[in-house]
Amino acid sequence: MEVKEITSTSNPLLRKIRELDDSGKRKKLGLFLVEGLKMIREAQEKEVELADIVASKSFFNSNIDTAALGAVDTLTVVPDRIFNSLCTTASSCGILATATMAKHSLDELLRSKSGPLVFGECIQDPGNLGTMIRTALAFEAQGLILSKGSVDYLSPKVVRASMGAVFSLPIVDEQDVEDCLGRLKATNTRVVALDAKATQTMDSENWPGRVVYIFGNEGHGLSSQVLEHADQIASIPISPKSESLNVAVAMGIVLYQARLELSSDGAGSR
Amino acid sequence: MEVKEITSTSNPLLRKIRELDDSGKRKKLGLFLVEGLKMIREAQEKEVELADIVASKSFFNSNIDTAALGAVDTLTVVPDRIFNSLCTTASSCGILATATMAKHSLDELLRSKSGPLVFGECIQDPGNLGTMIRTALAFEAQGLILSKGSVDYLSPKVVRASMGAVFSLPIVDEQDVEDCLGRLKATNTRVVALDAKATQTMDSENWPGRVVYIFGNEGHGLSSQVLEHADQIASIPISPKSESLNVAVAMGIVLYQARLELSSDGAGSR
Repeated sequence: MEVKEITSTSNPLLRKIRELDDSGKRKKLGLFLVEGLKMIREAQEKEVELADIVASKSFFNSNIDTAALGAVDTLTVVPDRIFNSLCTTASSCGILATATMAKHSLDELLRSKSGPLVFGECIQDPGNLGTMIRTALAFEAQGLILSKGSVDYLSPKVVRASMGAVFSLPIVDEQDVEDCLGRLKATNTRVVALDAKATQTMDSENWPGRVVYIFGNEGHGLSSQVLEHADQIASIPISPKSESLNVAVAMGIVLYQARLELSSDGAGSR
Repeated sequence: MEVKEITSTSNPLLRKIRELDDSGKRKKLGLFLVEGLKMIREAQEKEVELADIVASKSFFNSNIDTAALGAVDTLTVVPDRIFNSLCTTASSCGILATATMAKHSLDELLRSKSGPLVFGECIQDPGNLGTMIRTALAFEAQGLILSKGSVDYLSPKVVRASMGAVFSLPIVDEQDVEDCLGRLKATNTRVVALDAKATQTMDSENWPGRVVYIFGNEGHGLSSQVLEHADQIASIPISPKSESLNVAVAMGIVLYQARLELSSDGAGSR
């Protein structure tokens, strides 16, 4: 591994890294940021392709186990002050990488045989989206579909909140809701929309095909398009003192419940 | 309602408000910040005592429905530039208030008859804590206990993420873990500790008394004290591809499952 030192803030590599805080630039360059040693290792394990790796001088001097970094050609070391201007975290992450994300398509998700799909419509909060990705992976969803108008799932905050799940879960974004629902229904997918105002709870109808669970925007809920096309509109029963659940918490309960029903079906008790 | 204008940044009221971003100062002054009209109305509905209300000039001119503010003696209006320096949100919240929180005690929670308790040990992330509070209220937990070393539940980020649930859910903080577990057990409370590494799932033992569910720190999990004193150490089964669930998502699933068992007990089917 070659170690290279950079001391000028205007170095093109550092300029490029700073740009990756912006969604438009991420899309243009096809790169996103992976921050901190734990997350970099996680990305390497999941065979995410890393382009550049940059460490702060003090992190390099004190912490780095270069062997743990695996097959890295070049490590760039920069003064702490400059490194801190690259980090999007409140405290310095010590080391970061630029990475290329494998692209998935809706077709690919529609070919998956078992396990539910999840769909986020205009999810706004990066922390929520990251936690949704983490939750979907934990409950073996086959993939996450995001509508146009959702926050970019490769933003540093989403990557962080996903705890690395973003490297494993197939995600397709920028989907047109109407088109996408049409294609889901054409492939025998039951559309269950979660809406805090719905009076029905999720039923356990024995659906032979796939199910997609749709979760709406944090403030405005689901669009009229989704509500119109859904096979079921359901809510999770909560206290009348409470308006709604956080969207990632709702997803956790829905996927947990779906699995309970699946195992109960399997045992022949339903 | 009297309207008062302030134009000096060094005005004592504005200085006090700026200090409320700090946990120590909140404790010293016995006040916390409520930001945005929706949250202020929520606080008023829940009879939280508001001390000062401050709006930006442009919010006052364009948006404010003074009738909606209810019984407010004085509204302080400040130039937008100054107001923005008071807000802890990324975009201006337009209006904010200082408020006094009703104090609860562990004794009070231990006197509550039905419904589970939840316990957070060293919860660090304000967004997580806020979502835990929102989730606990939604599933009718009787209250939340927080250990020493948890983030302050009156920090602006927690209040915001709780979506106002912090005004309704009884919370006691700064608890010594050992003392608190002793008092819980002495009052016939079953202690269930949630640990991602546990091999057991939550059992549905028919416990006649109250249950407290304990959730650990985001990075380090539960302390050895909790693991030692727990009546059960349980996990939520997840994919081997996934390390753990977000703590608020885990709480949602645990409280949802606890209620399922309760209603199933009631129906005599378990």
